[in-house]
Amino acid sequence: MSVTPLKTVMLPTPLALDGGQVLEGVGLAWEAWGSLNAARDNAVLICHALTGDQFVAGPNPVTGRPAWWGEVVGPGKAIDPARDYVICTNVLGGCMGSTGPTSLDAEGRPWGRRFPVITIADMVRAQAMALEALGITRLKAVVGGSMGGMQALEWARAFPERVAACVAIATTARHSAQNIAFYEVGRQAVMADPDWCDGDYLAQGKFPRAGLGVARMAAHITYVSETSLKRRFDRQLRGRERPSFGFEADFQVESYLRHQATRFVDRFDANSYLYITRAMDYFDLWGTDPDGLARTFQGSPVRFGVFAFSSDWHYPPQESRALVQGLHGAGADVSYLEVETDTGHDAFLLEEPGFQAALAGFLGWVAP
Amino acid sequence: MSVTPLKTVMLPTPLALDGGQVLEGVGLAWEAWGSLNAARDNAVLICHALTGDQFVAGPNPVTGRPAWWGEVVGPGKAIDPARDYVICTNVLGGCMGSTGPTSLDAEGRPWGRRFPVITIADMVRAQAMALEALGITRLKAVVGGSMGGMQALEWARAFPERVAACVAIATTARHSAQNIAFYEVGRQAVMADPDWCDGDYLAQGKFPRAGLGVARMAAHITYVSETSLKRRFDRQLRGRERPSFGFEADFQVESYLRHQATRFVDRFDANSYLYITRAMDYFDLWGTDPDGLARTFQGSPVRFGVFAFSSDWHYPPQESRALVQGLHGAGADVSYLEVETDTGHDAFLLEEPGFQAALAGFLGWVAP
Repeated sequence: MSVTPLKTVMLPTPLALDGGQVLEGVGLAWEAWGSLNAARDNAVLICHALTGDQFVAGPNPVTGRPAWWGEVVGPGKAIDPARDYVICTNVLGGCMGSTGPTSLDAEGRPWGRRFPVITIADMVRAQAMALEALGITRLKAVVGGSMGGMQALEWARAFPERVAACVAIATTARHSAQNIAFYEVGRQAVMADPDWCDGDYLAQGKFPRAGLGVARMAAHITYVSETSLKRRFDRQLRGRERPSFGFEADFQVESYLRHQATRFVDRFDANSYLYITRAMDYFDLWGTDPDGLARTFQGSPVRFGVFAFSSDWHYPPQESRALVQGLHGAGADVSYLEVETDTGHDAFLLEEPGFQAALAGFLGWVAP
Repeated sequence: MSVTPLKTVMLPTPLALDGGQVLEGVGLAWEAWGSLNAARDNAVLICHALTGDQFVAGPNPVTGRPAWWGEVVGPGKAIDPARDYVICTNVLGGCMGSTGPTSLDAEGRPWGRRFPVITIADMVRAQAMALEALGITRLKAVVGGSMGGMQALEWARAFPERVAACVAIATTARHSAQNIAFYEVGRQAVMADPDWCDGDYLAQGKFPRAGLGVARMAAHITYVSETSLKRRFDRQLRGRERPSFGFEADFQVESYLRHQATRFVDRFDANSYLYITRAMDYFDLWGTDPDGLARTFQGSPVRFGVFAFSSDWHYPPQESRALVQGLHGAGADVSYLEVETDTGHDAFLLEEPGFQAALAGFLGWVAP
């Protein structure tokens, strides 16, 4: 484990979870860029996705990886620290310094699988308490892609008076059966690995590398479009003219997936993967009522910006359209942009000038 | 292992493989329904998909499962044993009686991972030799869905003079990068399981149940459409009102996937899964030449029937359209039907009256 010091804020009170348990001593790791202005009304909270972290605009000192959202956050970008106070916390249940299954319990043992199952609403409640402890009670905007978008929507639902604008990118208001199915495959891959040790691998000095790697490979396919896989790899063989007639990575696309898996297991915790994907599965702002979403956001003062990508098949545009329809039904102030691109779900992380310009326009327009 | 006797035909000569090796003593398990007529021109060869078997029109005595293509083959169906002599062989590399990685080598040990890597063309060459040994030198039609469609196309390519009609259903003329990626995830899941024993599990009395189960779950998601998962399961919880806040199968869709996995590992061999998916990855009737397909089938006397399903995202309709375009470029006689359905790739196995009626029409039209 790393010894890099990570900035952490402790919640002043215990955190009551949706599952009924109460977590004490919760800390969230966080980072910020820019300055809070005198009116304290220029804070933009960025919520990260499943495998993201708080290093949205600067390199991660633990992994050495560059800022994960350099296309959106930075000088001259849609979210500019020269204007906005940009803050991001590692989610509850995460593994970049926040309380989660890798943390120690009251007896000093890693929580492991005894960590309580959490929800997106739990994550957001913890974030709200953390921001309050940092003296931030109102946000100019809460912004997130993928699971970050779920948190942004949950912020607007739970704390409408604290959020001027909610930006939900490449996301959904509820996890579909297909989404649940894909993440269940990932969880089963992790739990099938004997080195998972029934969740107790940290105490036993092991790590389910193979299982977590398979989980990442399966998930990664859903983050990219078939078109982009074809453009980048097609059926190219890896450094040879003819197939090897074996099970090594003959095709470039196999080698790419294996590389993604290796990079991922070097930086992410297997139990965090289980807990966070479970929180996503439980996410549902509709419930069983067909008008559920409209009811949820009825009379909301929040201005919503919803962005989807045409080739995203992880959270496809129809999910965003259903969200926008529900928000319209609620009479909410909502802008929607469906960006034409063939880069799939990961488009929100990539250079997509049309998206980034529209996001800049939306956020520039938002009154604090 | 089962002791049910399976009908097997031995190839009279060794089989030269695309990978360069020569397999001796190859046997293919087979079944047939109906009677070969005096002119010996009413044989219809059915090629099965990745996890299929030769029991196309009658129950499998080993697994106890019903015929897998009862919707298409049977009295009054598109392929009717009252008219056609319907024959099906278990593929080379399979695990329902044909020579494959579970077979014994010359020293009497299970081949396991020492079995040579095979191709779709190898499977078809073995089938052609087996049919010849059974006295069948010409087929009224060769018919297959999914990987069966690849074999049907390969039959038309390799033995155009022996095939009156080729029916390729829900398939592709070459495996895409995304297809390779999905099957690579499955292979990695199998090989990550310590009970795979580097492919030698049979000799060691083990079986990689968990890994093969994960592979099946990942693949199964691609066989059904998102719409059908939503219609069948949506976000329904399993026998409870509220989520359990745990990692058991809370959602119906999780329980369904786990059930699919269990049923599958009870009946299929893990190494066969590796070898057969690898053969699919290698399948490519185009090559690097954009006119490759047209060149392959230039002047072909075979009549082609190509069927695709609108919601199939495993081998999506655009793959079939590209195939049809190539066949048109070759000047081939080709019919194409894109069936509107929301049941996804598995539509070819299900009750789809429009598809089955069109297939019946196509096959009724074919002159022997």
